[in-house]
Amino acid sequence: MARPSEPSRVGRDGARGRLLKQENFVPMSLEPARLQPMANAIRALSMDAVEAANSGHPGMPMGMADVATVLFTGHLKFDPTAPDWADRDRFILSAGHGSMLIYSLLYLTGYAAPTIDDIRNFRKLGSPCAGHPENFLLDGVECTTGPLGQGLAMAVGMAMAERHLNAVYGDDLVDHRTWVIAGDGCLMEGINHEAIGLAGHLKLGRLNVLWDDNRITIDGATDLSSSEDIKARYIATGWHVTECDGHDFADIERALQEAKADPRPSLVACRTLIGKGAPNKQGTSGVHGAALGGAEVAAARETLGWTAEPFVIPSEILADWRLAGEPGRAAHGAWAGRLEASEKKGDFTSQMAPIGSLVGPAIAGYIDDLARNPKTVATRKASEMALGPLTAAIPQLVGGSADLTGSNNTKTPSTLPMTAEDYSGRYVYYGIREFGMAAAMNGMALHGGIVPYGGTFLIFSDYCRNAIRLSALQQTGVVYVMTHDSIGLGEDGPTHQPVEHVMSLRLIPNLNVYRPADVIETAECWALALTTPETPSVLCLTRQNLPQLRGKGDENWSQANNRSAQGGYRLREATAARKVVIVATGSEVELAMTCADELEAQGIGADVVSMPCAELFDAQPEAYKADVLPTDALIVSIEAGSTLGWERYTGRSGINIGIDTFGASAPAEDLFAHFGFTAEAIVPQILNKLNA
Amino acid sequence: MARPSEPSRVGRDGARGRLLKQENFVPMSLEPARLQPMANAIRALSMDAVEAANSGHPGMPMGMADVATVLFTGHLKFDPTAPDWADRDRFILSAGHGSMLIYSLLYLTGYAAPTIDDIRNFRKLGSPCAGHPENFLLDGVECTTGPLGQGLAMAVGMAMAERHLNAVYGDDLVDHRTWVIAGDGCLMEGINHEAIGLAGHLKLGRLNVLWDDNRITIDGATDLSSSEDIKARYIATGWHVTECDGHDFADIERALQEAKADPRPSLVACRTLIGKGAPNKQGTSGVHGAALGGAEVAAARETLGWTAEPFVIPSEILADWRLAGEPGRAAHGAWAGRLEASEKKGDFTSQMAPIGSLVGPAIAGYIDDLARNPKTVATRKASEMALGPLTAAIPQLVGGSADLTGSNNTKTPSTLPMTAEDYSGRYVYYGIREFGMAAAMNGMALHGGIVPYGGTFLIFSDYCRNAIRLSALQQTGVVYVMTHDSIGLGEDGPTHQPVEHVMSLRLIPNLNVYRPADVIETAECWALALTTPETPSVLCLTRQNLPQLRGKGDENWSQANNRSAQGGYRLREATAARKVVIVATGSEVELAMTCADELEAQGIGADVVSMPCAELFDAQPEAYKADVLPTDALIVSIEAGSTLGWERYTGRSGINIGIDTFGASAPAEDLFAHFGFTAEAIVPQILNKLNA
Repeated sequence: MARPSEPSRVGRDGARGRLLKQENFVPMSLEPARLQPMANAIRALSMDAVEAANSGHPGMPMGMADVATVLFTGHLKFDPTAPDWADRDRFILSAGHGSMLIYSLLYLTGYAAPTIDDIRNFRKLGSPCAGHPENFLLDGVECTTGPLGQGLAMAVGMAMAERHLNAVYGDDLVDHRTWVIAGDGCLMEGINHEAIGLAGHLKLGRLNVLWDDNRITIDGATDLSSSEDIKARYIATGWHVTECDGHDFADIERALQEAKADPRPSLVACRTLIGKGAPNKQGTSGVHGAALGGAEVAAARETLGWTAEPFVIPSEILADWRLAGEPGRAAHGAWAGRLEASEKKGDFTSQMAPIGSLVGPAIAGYIDDLARNPKTVATRKASEMALGPLTAAIPQLVGGSADLTGSNNTKTPSTLPMTAEDYSGRYVYYGIREFGMAAAMNGMALHGGIVPYGGTFLIFSDYCRNAIRLSALQQTGVVYVMTHDSIGLGEDGPTHQPVEHVMSLRLIPNLNVYRPADVIETAECWALALTTPETPSVLCLTRQNLPQLRGKGDENWSQANNRSAQGGYRLREATAARKVVIVATGSEVELAMTCADELEAQGIGADVVSMPCAELFDAQPEAYKADVLPTDALIVSIEAGSTLGWERYTGRSGINIGIDTFGASAPAEDLFAHFGFTAEAIVPQILNKLNA
Repeated sequence: MARPSEPSRVGRDGARGRLLKQENFVPMSLEPARLQPMANAIRALSMDAVEAANSGHPGMPMGMADVATVLFTGHLKFDPTAPDWADRDRFILSAGHGSMLIYSLLYLTGYAAPTIDDIRNFRKLGSPCAGHPENFLLDGVECTTGPLGQGLAMAVGMAMAERHLNAVYGDDLVDHRTWVIAGDGCLMEGINHEAIGLAGHLKLGRLNVLWDDNRITIDGATDLSSSEDIKARYIATGWHVTECDGHDFADIERALQEAKADPRPSLVACRTLIGKGAPNKQGTSGVHGAALGGAEVAAARETLGWTAEPFVIPSEILADWRLAGEPGRAAHGAWAGRLEASEKKGDFTSQMAPIGSLVGPAIAGYIDDLARNPKTVATRKASEMALGPLTAAIPQLVGGSADLTGSNNTKTPSTLPMTAEDYSGRYVYYGIREFGMAAAMNGMALHGGIVPYGGTFLIFSDYCRNAIRLSALQQTGVVYVMTHDSIGLGEDGPTHQPVEHVMSLRLIPNLNVYRPADVIETAECWALALTTPETPSVLCLTRQNLPQLRGKGDENWSQANNRSAQGGYRLREATAARKVVIVATGSEVELAMTCADELEAQGIGADVVSMPCAELFDAQPEAYKADVLPTDALIVSIEAGSTLGWERYTGRSGINIGIDTFGASAPAEDLFAHFGFTAEAIVPQILNKLNA
């Protein structure tokens, strides 16, 4: 029987330069003769599953099987019976196309899922073994990967979360590592530069990246498109780099030990043969993303000495694999005992719990004050004001900005800098790294214990768009603070003026896009954003000042009467017979009010509907929506952005006031006039339509 | 008087290892005493303009004024009287927020614009001196910059274009350099990694990047967020690196000479003081993005010894500046003589001219054949088929893919690889660098003489979205070949299935988004994409096979009867009395036809409208649109993507068949059934609505 064989030992966590108790976790140490068939089990399952699906990527799992086997048996701290144990090591398969690697590992080590039938149904409808690993389908899949580079970048966020919580709660409760398997694509994508720059700067020594250095991409050899000295680049960015023969168990073991010992984040270049075991195709791009075919599978079985039927793992090999999680299970037990005995148990438990119930009470008094003492401020400033009480009351909130702190207004007195010298801070200077920031926030949210928010200009949502999408797909509660939300940013001009961005973000499923109209709506939107832990939010905020439009009836505010929760609501009711409903968002609600005043002055009844969140409005009952946007009135939309999409509310016969061209460089008030955002320009259009 | 003082000389172009004739261009060489007031003229104009606008970034122009002065007087080959001279050096201000630097330089060296009044109106409506430099507002602004990192990445494309055209036309006609001024932000953004990786791999020795190494970002010192050894990183990526004191003219000169001499692309780290000259604010983030204020401007004038009134340049300094373009003007004259004498004159002239007239004839025969011999192929394959005759006939077409050549079907027999050993090839293996690819394509298009197209999966339009936006803003004719355009990609699952992308790209102004329904529409869309040189295109193409729906009437095809040119057209006309119009795109047009068949079988007249390009349809006369989508019929849209936006055509009472959630992993046909894309699911909805 395999047994944990290493004695208790004391290791050195160089990143902090202090001694760490490692007796909590004593992994197995198996001889190579035992490891080889275990690794081949991964190869067999991977090629069989890809073959059955006639779709998928066998090359990576087969190439990295040996490295993964050493990692899972000798280093990774995990408890298959408790995949959500807070102090587990995180394992990220950044090269998500090699998904059969992680499915194999989860099955072999005895997670409740996937079952062998799930693996048989790889890439078929309903199987949790999807084409790429999805965090919402399988425990043990820490994050959704496939969009290249983002797994590693999310791992950076997880490693940040670990260091932060460690700084707050100590080694007894938080003391784990983050492990990544990444491919050439993950290293070639631009986000890699941002992610490793952040990790190097923050000295995330507990982050270890195992690079599948197989020198093959889909188009062919990596030297078709790259001449980079990757190791030198990582060293230049503050990383420790080592390498190993990815098919020599002892050498892999040495490299992982070295990675753990170094105080810097580590890159382990694992020299591998893609598709190792498939004798005629290994080492070529032909094995990257296509099934091997029956003949080659047969040849591979011969090469590997694998005689079991497809999807069958010999019992002695499976038994060895099932032992791999035992050390972690024991460590989990010890950890649970320490938690029970800890004076920080209550705080730690709250830290890891949802924050929803904290939000309303944290902010109610602030809104009460606003109701009584109106404020004219930019909504970016209103956001900062709301963040004051929120960050004071909710320790999970960790803020930051991609080098626009003073513009995004994301920093509060409660959020001190998180640095390599003091990870306990709750504010991250992300640098000019929007994509890296967004992915790191996803990682922190997925780690648990942290609710991240981060700022940039709304236009630069383009730079991190796929990470926002992954926030939504992965069902995280990340909050994006996107300021300078229209031509209202003024002089910086069209490169910096989001025209299409608000609408284009609304298109992303499971993402709430908020565009509040004043200081109270901004607070309400923050309150909503922090109470949807499975739906990320984008707050689109102005650079320019906006008058307070709300207040009457908000004096005894609570989440229960958060008017923004309906997504859109009647802010002003027609006094004359209603003929027009003007629906607007953000900075244009004030303009809608002015237009309505002018119409009413001419005896034309006009409602104004503020719609801070179209997604929440769409989710209201039909009767509510029909009441707010009746079919017997002319519906007019005003939003300083794309009109496409507004027809959902205005129909083919309504009026859509917006901008369908790029903006221009000028002071904001000149631009609003130039692009027709004045009552003088809009009211006549409404009158013409009514008279048509 | 300043005079060109260097003798003719013979330099060595190490990238190719051969001798280059340099006598064509002999720049000035002025002593530092003459250069200093010239540099201070930039400082004065920059601080005055920012002060007048009370908006802008004075720090960068003041910090880089000395470097820019050496570059423009001693190295840059340009003719202010002919900004579009094909063989000029390209100068890119990648740190576009420092726009007053380039406006100052263009004014001082005597370009027709900007005038001093334009500079007075910096950042005001109508001034060509916009907040960030816009290529469509000023000659001499080679590309629009501001979105950080992209200027440098576009410069890579320009340098590729230069080497390609040099390989084809020789040193006599194409022999210029690309110069970049970049800031810390340009180097920190992820796209930097992609861009310099491509440049290093392709050994673009004529690309020189002058890095404004001022160690300040908006949030503060660069070490707040970065610990990277930038020089080591560039060296690791195949670059030559040198450095200089950015305020020592002789040292700058030495570094630029060194950069020109090295066969690799060069990074020159110019150690500067941000805002140099403003005695109390220089060297701090306070001078980065805000006006200095009257007192500090006065102090700066004192420090610089600058006594002229605001916006006035003393005549002797202006006279020196006006000489800077003389060597380039002379070189331009010599070049024109060589062109006139060249046997390649005709070819070169065609190469640099618009390609529109070549397109129809290149592809007409191919479409004729299809009309007579229908083909069932995926539209990505149809794209490859169309590219065959197009790339054979049009030498300007340069293709590529971000490591998905075999999936995007972007390579043809006419497009051989472009490599460091042979730049004459017309196919770029961009590597796993979507953003870098898109920016490089923008650079190639802006350089002229090349019409670039490049492929990736449609989902990864997210990774390069802001570069697509810059294609549109800059009015380039770049073509994006985006395959695997819906859940039809199947097994790869939701991370790889574009749901919101087609609609979200439609939101970008001046971008044509094509989603052809069959092999003929695909060819038509290509023909359209290549005849809009000021509007970029995205072709959204299927992975899966589609039947040919067109052909009758297409036998004598020409651009004049390109039916896709109307954006949407009646593909099938109701035979019974029309009650329904089904409008669909791409792979769903086939389904629309089936639904129409079933409706007609029940006596319900149904048109089918194919809408390969909504933007072109929107641009049609109202009468045409009303005829195609009449208000007295039920309008039904079918597109395997977001429904939001389709209400423009279907109104509040139509039916929108689409997907407003993420996809799933399964074979394509299972997914289409699962998500309701079958006649069995759709026809009853139509009947219910008609009977409601």
